[in-house]
Amino acid sequence: VTGWDDIRDEALGADAADPLRHLRERMALPAGVAYLDGNSLGPLTHAARDAVRRCVDREWATGLIGSWAEGAWVDLAPRTADRIARIIGAPAGSVACADSTTVNLHKALHAAVSLAPGRRRVVSVQGDFPTDRYVTARVAADRGLTVDQVPAGDVAAALDEDVAVVSMSHVDFRSARIADLAGVTAAAHAVGALAVWDLAHSAGALPIGIAASGADLAVGCGYKYLNGGPGAPAYLYVAPRHAAAETPIPGWFGHTDPFAFGEAYAPAAGARRFEAGTTPVLGTTALHAALSAFDGVGMDALRLRGMELTARLVDLFDVHLAPLGVTLQSPRDPGVRGGHVMLGHPRARELVRALAAGGVVGDFRPPDGLRFGLAPLYTTRAEVVRLARELAALLA
Amino acid sequence: VTGWDDIRDEALGADAADPLRHLRERMALPAGVAYLDGNSLGPLTHAARDAVRRCVDREWATGLIGSWAEGAWVDLAPRTADRIARIIGAPAGSVACADSTTVNLHKALHAAVSLAPGRRRVVSVQGDFPTDRYVTARVAADRGLTVDQVPAGDVAAALDEDVAVVSMSHVDFRSARIADLAGVTAAAHAVGALAVWDLAHSAGALPIGIAASGADLAVGCGYKYLNGGPGAPAYLYVAPRHAAAETPIPGWFGHTDPFAFGEAYAPAAGARRFEAGTTPVLGTTALHAALSAFDGVGMDALRLRGMELTARLVDLFDVHLAPLGVTLQSPRDPGVRGGHVMLGHPRARELVRALAAGGVVGDFRPPDGLRFGLAPLYTTRAEVVRLARELAALLA
Repeated sequence: VTGWDDIRDEALGADAADPLRHLRERMALPAGVAYLDGNSLGPLTHAARDAVRRCVDREWATGLIGSWAEGAWVDLAPRTADRIARIIGAPAGSVACADSTTVNLHKALHAAVSLAPGRRRVVSVQGDFPTDRYVTARVAADRGLTVDQVPAGDVAAALDEDVAVVSMSHVDFRSARIADLAGVTAAAHAVGALAVWDLAHSAGALPIGIAASGADLAVGCGYKYLNGGPGAPAYLYVAPRHAAAETPIPGWFGHTDPFAFGEAYAPAAGARRFEAGTTPVLGTTALHAALSAFDGVGMDALRLRGMELTARLVDLFDVHLAPLGVTLQSPRDPGVRGGHVMLGHPRARELVRALAAGGVVGDFRPPDGLRFGLAPLYTTRAEVVRLARELAALLA
Repeated sequence: VTGWDDIRDEALGADAADPLRHLRERMALPAGVAYLDGNSLGPLTHAARDAVRRCVDREWATGLIGSWAEGAWVDLAPRTADRIARIIGAPAGSVACADSTTVNLHKALHAAVSLAPGRRRVVSVQGDFPTDRYVTARVAADRGLTVDQVPAGDVAAALDEDVAVVSMSHVDFRSARIADLAGVTAAAHAVGALAVWDLAHSAGALPIGIAASGADLAVGCGYKYLNGGPGAPAYLYVAPRHAAAETPIPGWFGHTDPFAFGEAYAPAAGARRFEAGTTPVLGTTALHAALSAFDGVGMDALRLRGMELTARLVDLFDVHLAPLGVTLQSPRDPGVRGGHVMLGHPRARELVRALAAGGVVGDFRPPDGLRFGLAPLYTTRAEVVRLARELAALLA
């Protein structure tokens, strides 16, 4: 058996040879910490820190209202949205950056139900992220539809001509299992239903190709792999063919000419109509700058790097953690495994706490999950080894 | 006739004797500028600058996910909401800080319609802030109700037993006219309707006494007189007697235990159920800190100071601006005039631009309005004189 020092040295060597290793320098990571929770809250980037400081000290303090009239704020949201569009594989103008994922899902589902009139059912997924299920259930109830919650693998089988909308996550927040984005979407379309996707746990970790998938609408989160900061603005994708889709919240920033203060609501073209109130400038500034960490690198290359990271953790799990009573709650097949790995142990809560005390930061997810995000922009192979080694030591 | 220098000197003397003059030192105002647009975008406070820097450099960069688990973020929104509650005259726990004014109005109106079942009409106000009218019209349509837009003074007369909700602004965004908050609310209640108020242009400028007024729900903006920063989070007040009011957007931060990831939606007690997605931490941090600028001063004292400022501008208007073709588009009676003054002139757009070029910053509001916010926290009498003098000079 190879010792941990040898395993670490091999990982350090692979890290040193990594052609993408320079990307980590874009992050302002604390020294000595293996931060494996970027799927929950992405770390600060140097770009975001500089941009927020400039926004506060210059644009707000000195520019004041002029930063709306003549400055960079008026189109900050669409400029940010277009950066997200590239990352999720959407054409410019098809993504709005606004509000939270929760609010955007509310908007997307109302729009989708309106695009499938006369149908009586919505299909969502058992165990999907709670807020998604809460919002889906509520929109369905408010529109007079019923909701069927089915296991993720049974969605296609649950569809019929009475289904208006399928609402589900692309990557499961617990297991990291990747849903069949294009396949489920095609199955939905085959019965005349729409597919609305939550990309929170996939955007920035893997190529999504949301437009190519045929998806109707999608929402996602700015503060996970996109590193936009705590509670960063979220986004909403609407397929260009749904140019007439209507938001249930027609706010002035979704108006075609907000500062005309017009009598009647005239929605902006494209996704921008799904903006509602005033752009949250501080948060959007941080997100816009943070997205520059993806400059010059393709999602395919990041995906390969991410798959190598999660495969390395699964390999270490097999040899060193499974014998100590740890289980694997993520798929073995890296092709259907997203950017994080969920391990299981009855003492998960306490183990996550002990790891964090030692500088290895992951997430506890009830009831027994240890969740580790291996962000392809900055997580190193050596950090993966450190995690496995320290977890094994805690259990030994 | 007194010359402008004498008028200025008298104002400077009054400023020097002002027992509230220390409040201005809390603001990070640019030198040489008379910023009279705080009703559109409040200026930076030193407290907000320090708090945002600490949030980015320490809480986010170093604390990372721990700033949720052990840090100050989890209850940042309710702590901020309780600061707003004091300013608008609401009990602790009856205000939620979240989302934009637009989204909050959507939530408040849906909740209000649900509290008045079986009724078929909503009453709103002609010329009210566009996004309010757009959202009101849309909620009404989506709930199968019709909307009557009536002049602000005719709202009480438009009420009958078929009205579910009255939706209107407390202070008009153009004229600054203060609506009869308690009177209209009582008239609504007399026919069994609910009153939903937008406090965007009154909160922080005058005492509102929202709870004492009997209002059912209210929303407002964090970035005007509250100085929370561009696109700051907004708020939603719900009268404690409406504890069972339901938000149409049941998100995880409105859940009674968000991090339990529960199967069913269980709304938090009080106003917090009207939170939806994750707290936007950067913006809420700025707003929370900015609200400390109101520490140690009552809204009654600020109101007296604000009334003196607007009365001074109206006096100067009468003597020096009316003869040059300027009109007064705000009420003469300071008792029904909010924190800003709207002047009128056919060349308003160009005059506002020329004033700004000279360091006197106001707002142009189509078609012919020059709008000046005289924020009682920091606007000085000397700035009011400077405005009148420079406007007179431009017109002479």
